[in-house]
Amino acid sequence: MSESEFSLIEKYFSLPAQKFTHSHTVLGIGDDAAVMSVPAGHQLVVTMDTLIAGRHFPLQTSPFDIAYKSLAVNVSDLVAMAATPAFFLLSITLPAADEHFLAEFSAGLFAAAHEFSIVLVGGDTCQGSLSISIQASGLVAEHAYITRSGAGIGDRIFVSGPLGAAALGLASVQNRVQLTPEQQQFCINALNRPRPRLDMIDLLRDFASAAIDLSDGLLGDLGHILTKSRCGALLDKQKIPAYQALSLHHCLDYALSGGDDYQILFSVPVDKLEAMVSAAAEQGLELFDIGEITQAGFFMQADNATIDLSNSRGFDHFAA
Amino acid sequence: MSESEFSLIEKYFSLPAQKFTHSHTVLGIGDDAAVMSVPAGHQLVVTMDTLIAGRHFPLQTSPFDIAYKSLAVNVSDLVAMAATPAFFLLSITLPAADEHFLAEFSAGLFAAAHEFSIVLVGGDTCQGSLSISIQASGLVAEHAYITRSGAGIGDRIFVSGPLGAAALGLASVQNRVQLTPEQQQFCINALNRPRPRLDMIDLLRDFASAAIDLSDGLLGDLGHILTKSRCGALLDKQKIPAYQALSLHHCLDYALSGGDDYQILFSVPVDKLEAMVSAAAEQGLELFDIGEITQAGFFMQADNATIDLSNSRGFDHFAA
Repeated sequence: MSESEFSLIEKYFSLPAQKFTHSHTVLGIGDDAAVMSVPAGHQLVVTMDTLIAGRHFPLQTSPFDIAYKSLAVNVSDLVAMAATPAFFLLSITLPAADEHFLAEFSAGLFAAAHEFSIVLVGGDTCQGSLSISIQASGLVAEHAYITRSGAGIGDRIFVSGPLGAAALGLASVQNRVQLTPEQQQFCINALNRPRPRLDMIDLLRDFASAAIDLSDGLLGDLGHILTKSRCGALLDKQKIPAYQALSLHHCLDYALSGGDDYQILFSVPVDKLEAMVSAAAEQGLELFDIGEITQAGFFMQADNATIDLSNSRGFDHFAA
Repeated sequence: MSESEFSLIEKYFSLPAQKFTHSHTVLGIGDDAAVMSVPAGHQLVVTMDTLIAGRHFPLQTSPFDIAYKSLAVNVSDLVAMAATPAFFLLSITLPAADEHFLAEFSAGLFAAAHEFSIVLVGGDTCQGSLSISIQASGLVAEHAYITRSGAGIGDRIFVSGPLGAAALGLASVQNRVQLTPEQQQFCINALNRPRPRLDMIDLLRDFASAAIDLSDGLLGDLGHILTKSRCGALLDKQKIPAYQALSLHHCLDYALSGGDDYQILFSVPVDKLEAMVSAAAEQGLELFDIGEITQAGFFMQADNATIDLSNSRGFDHFAA
């Protein structure tokens, strides 16, 4: 006889399986709902993302990595708002009550939860084709959150790290590119274990005028900032921090449109630039200044030409 | 060309589609995450449930009803904790960007949201087999929430309304029972449009020692209270408010084990009984006293016998 739903939840997702709890948890897993406290002077930042097998991760991805990535992409959204992760709920749909899968999945989930300092407080288990929905909540001091809509003309555009490795990893898994074994290992790890940039939270809160996490690709996600902030951008091709493999030309494509990077793209007003650069240096953060917010249009300055990017866009789940 | 994901979300789930907003919404749909405020002296009650097509609702269910029920079952969990609904996030996975489906679904979602006074603040849209995950949050005055674990020996056990109609509706849709047209209409409506008992929130908060919403069936859900409260129960078969159709014997089965009722099952200490009954009468609530919390065991007093219920249990998604 298969395990019952209740004992499965008890066994793999109960509170004692977590290495730590949060002072915000008033009542954790095991009732109709969990009860959380929100400290005075703070606001709650809430996000929810679903990952579907074969769509958001390759079918052969390990249960550990599926769980890790599912939590990471949600936490990354909190980071982009300059919120500190606090708690999350998980709804997992799987074809059968596979104990091996659940053991590995919960190991990955709690490894990620521990790394990101976020606590599982509830959720649901269903039978169906494999998908994972996570709703994550973070905390931010009142009105200290950062949105996509605050970029201003003249602001510098920064990205928090190299881009394109995850998309190259996916291309490699799908036999669309040939990488060296070392490159392949690096890129597949970037694909399966994205690291939300928790080390960016303070910097974003203190200096950013707008921010977004790079899930759909640099061009698509910068497009969201430009739309919301009603402005344009001029990127400098030379300064895009593309992960280096294959030819330079190819890598730049992956860096611009690949997606799944989970670095932070953000803008900084010129009058805060010096203080931001100095704070970043103090924290040992290597940031990349890739261009400038302009009044309108979306362009990239290349060696001998200015490329119009206004028709490019990010990954679209329903695109024809 | 199909609509893009972004324009779909914009079109069917954006804030202007909602008839009202909440004072708790600091930043709604359209960024990496939403920002919510929690009023001083309150705690946040959080729950998350996924509904899978063909499992949690019949495949022929209308998109309007799918949306309505998905939100209702989550709000019902908040009610069972004595929390007032505040906001929710939706992740919908659907096979294709079907505009007809989305138009009807969003109509059902916002009709329910308006009825339950809860605001959509974010979420996700994916391609895959049809399923709906909703994470709902409610508010409760500090430590005024009700759990499954507070029932005490001698407490009376109440249920907030008749049971079994939704399960009869499902049986009817699946051609397992024959109902009159009027019964069928009533029962299918109970199945597709469960009404979370928002009118019970104040009463639960003021008088209940334990509470749960009836999703898995009376026996299974009472079992959860007994396990969590470490006690037993003696039900009175005569007093179970079974929806009347078919033979009495059959209806009792549906009432005890059918599930999907979303009435509230709760216990009340004897010293609060009189005040509770009077408060209920004042609100026009018809409640059913169905038995008593005991030290141990799980029994039902029938006409000539005492039936042992300790091996019964609720709906189990992975049961063999």
